[in-house]
Amino acid sequence: MNEKPFKSALSVQEGIKQPSSVNPYWNKQDRKKKAELTADQMVGKILAQDRTVLSQTITLVESTNPAHSTKAQEVIEKLLPHSGNSIRIGITGVPGVGKSTFIESFGKHVTGLGHKLAVLAIDPSSERSNGSILGDKTRMEELSTDPNAFIRPSPSGLTLGGVAQKTREVITLCEAAGFDVIIVETVGVGQSETVVKSMVDFFLLLMLAGAGDELQGIKRGIMEMADAIVINKADGDNIDKANFAKSQYQAALRLFPPCESGWNVPVKTCSAIEKKNIDEVWQMIRKYQEFTTGNGYFGNYRKQQLVKIFYDWIESTLITRFFADENVQAKITQLIPEIKKGNISPYVAGGSVIKDLGNVEM
Amino acid sequence: MNEKPFKSALSVQEGIKQPSSVNPYWNKQDRKKKAELTADQMVGKILAQDRTVLSQTITLVESTNPAHSTKAQEVIEKLLPHSGNSIRIGITGVPGVGKSTFIESFGKHVTGLGHKLAVLAIDPSSERSNGSILGDKTRMEELSTDPNAFIRPSPSGLTLGGVAQKTREVITLCEAAGFDVIIVETVGVGQSETVVKSMVDFFLLLMLAGAGDELQGIKRGIMEMADAIVINKADGDNIDKANFAKSQYQAALRLFPPCESGWNVPVKTCSAIEKKNIDEVWQMIRKYQEFTTGNGYFGNYRKQQLVKIFYDWIESTLITRFFADENVQAKITQLIPEIKKGNISPYVAGGSVIKDLGNVEM
Repeated sequence: MNEKPFKSALSVQEGIKQPSSVNPYWNKQDRKKKAELTADQMVGKILAQDRTVLSQTITLVESTNPAHSTKAQEVIEKLLPHSGNSIRIGITGVPGVGKSTFIESFGKHVTGLGHKLAVLAIDPSSERSNGSILGDKTRMEELSTDPNAFIRPSPSGLTLGGVAQKTREVITLCEAAGFDVIIVETVGVGQSETVVKSMVDFFLLLMLAGAGDELQGIKRGIMEMADAIVINKADGDNIDKANFAKSQYQAALRLFPPCESGWNVPVKTCSAIEKKNIDEVWQMIRKYQEFTTGNGYFGNYRKQQLVKIFYDWIESTLITRFFADENVQAKITQLIPEIKKGNISPYVAGGSVIKDLGNVEM
Repeated sequence: MNEKPFKSALSVQEGIKQPSSVNPYWNKQDRKKKAELTADQMVGKILAQDRTVLSQTITLVESTNPAHSTKAQEVIEKLLPHSGNSIRIGITGVPGVGKSTFIESFGKHVTGLGHKLAVLAIDPSSERSNGSILGDKTRMEELSTDPNAFIRPSPSGLTLGGVAQKTREVITLCEAAGFDVIIVETVGVGQSETVVKSMVDFFLLLMLAGAGDELQGIKRGIMEMADAIVINKADGDNIDKANFAKSQYQAALRLFPPCESGWNVPVKTCSAIEKKNIDEVWQMIRKYQEFTTGNGYFGNYRKQQLVKIFYDWIESTLITRFFADENVQAKITQLIPEIKKGNISPYVAGGSVIKDLGNVEM
């Protein structure tokens, strides 16, 4: 393969026009190519691990311009058979748990072992703020200049469903470009965990010692999704507290029903800032991959995820179109107060919506 | 109100033609009325707490005959303003946890305090077996002959969504007929818990001491739905084990995020068979009702449930109709193997289904 040294993630992400004296790969010829590449050329460049083209294609995937998305779909379909050769890791934890520092330490460890790492984000807040907190590139300084790491912020201006679709497509692109460890990170505060869980092989919950305030932000149900709990900031005065928390979580998890995968959810402590026990976390994930590959769960779960996405996509498209209809909206607005007052049953109300408007043009 | 003594639940449920010497209310006149009652007459009789008519109306609600369901809907709509004055309690636990014995002891305690109790069931297995295990009337001998208790098995031959709708409508009928404590029971093995959770005020998880085999049957996620965990069979040699399990669960729950209601999930032990600590469980539920009424959650949660049912009903109707279409089914059957092989993305596959068939007649 015709592998070129990567540009730094920082320059690619920001799209800064750097003088060629700083980066010899950033020159007029490259910029000219950007506008001209056909879908087939993009496919070839991505398979050749060209990071500039990878980045351009991601921008194309995230574009809301219909012409762009047709081309993006063509590229993705052609790359699908070349994707999948990776371990996909979901990471969640509330703000303050040290997620960025953990991903930086973990990521540096993994690239140090010769892996190529892509870090993607699903950030429910980016929809509102139009600027993802997880997209803040300055927070992973070491990783963002690592030639074997690629950091991409959460696309903004989309619904959670839209972000999920785009992120899955970006995973395909990154895998085709040779990235064999994919991290999808999110904040443990909303529905985004379910979405992340549906696109990764391994779901890691980062926690802090002490079961107090930091739990206020984590939604119920997320603990039972985790394939591992890692207690961060096990350093300095905090070590004893972290070990105590570890034994508490271990006892609690024994009361949980077993995972479908047959995997026993481990609890680990680590210090991302002191880079302690980071390899333990990585070895645990390798062990999970080995274990679930051995019992067939790994591949089956990925196939299940695809079929579920297929059905979910059809359902959400049908529903979104239906509820976007103006007449449907007007009728619902009129019915909800009556339902809340108990004057009409939700079934009769629903029936009248379907009866009057169920044949809306899809 | 013109309250007549109730017929026994047993005779009403089984529809056995008893000689009038055994039950003076079961006579020719009653049977004649059964065929002739108008919707308005049914409403009047149910409000007058006539259990025979209540039972007939439930049969009407559960009927799949369109003429019956039109009449049933009319009755339900008219009774809606008279419903809601109850505490609705969901109870789940795997087979072997002693659920029937618990409901019998708990139910007798509650009717002994002057309450009127209805026990309904949502049994995912009844769809397949066409004979609900939860409907086995012989398992609650004392309660089934209690004039202040009404036991109704899970309707059979319906999807889970259908059972949910019917059960909600039966709750309305029972409340209008003066039942002020409603129990909806299910088995902790499937999606039925989510359905039960969506129609009750309080969700109780019955467990056994020891975190071993009995957990195998409980689905992940159910523990985090519970408003209380009650460890049954705390009797004889089992008391120490039950108390130990209690302290373990208490510690585990402290690691869980708080409930939206602001309620701290308690862990209790009881012995249903020895009728020990049954009042504690009842007092706990009363305390929950008081607490959540105080902070406004109780009423708001019921309103939220109604609006959610409304949306869910529209969505599931749209989706069911779409996927029932023959052309849609054929296309999906053809696409799924390609998706699993990774030859087509689930989005492109979904898009082609919508493009070709999205205008299917609804």
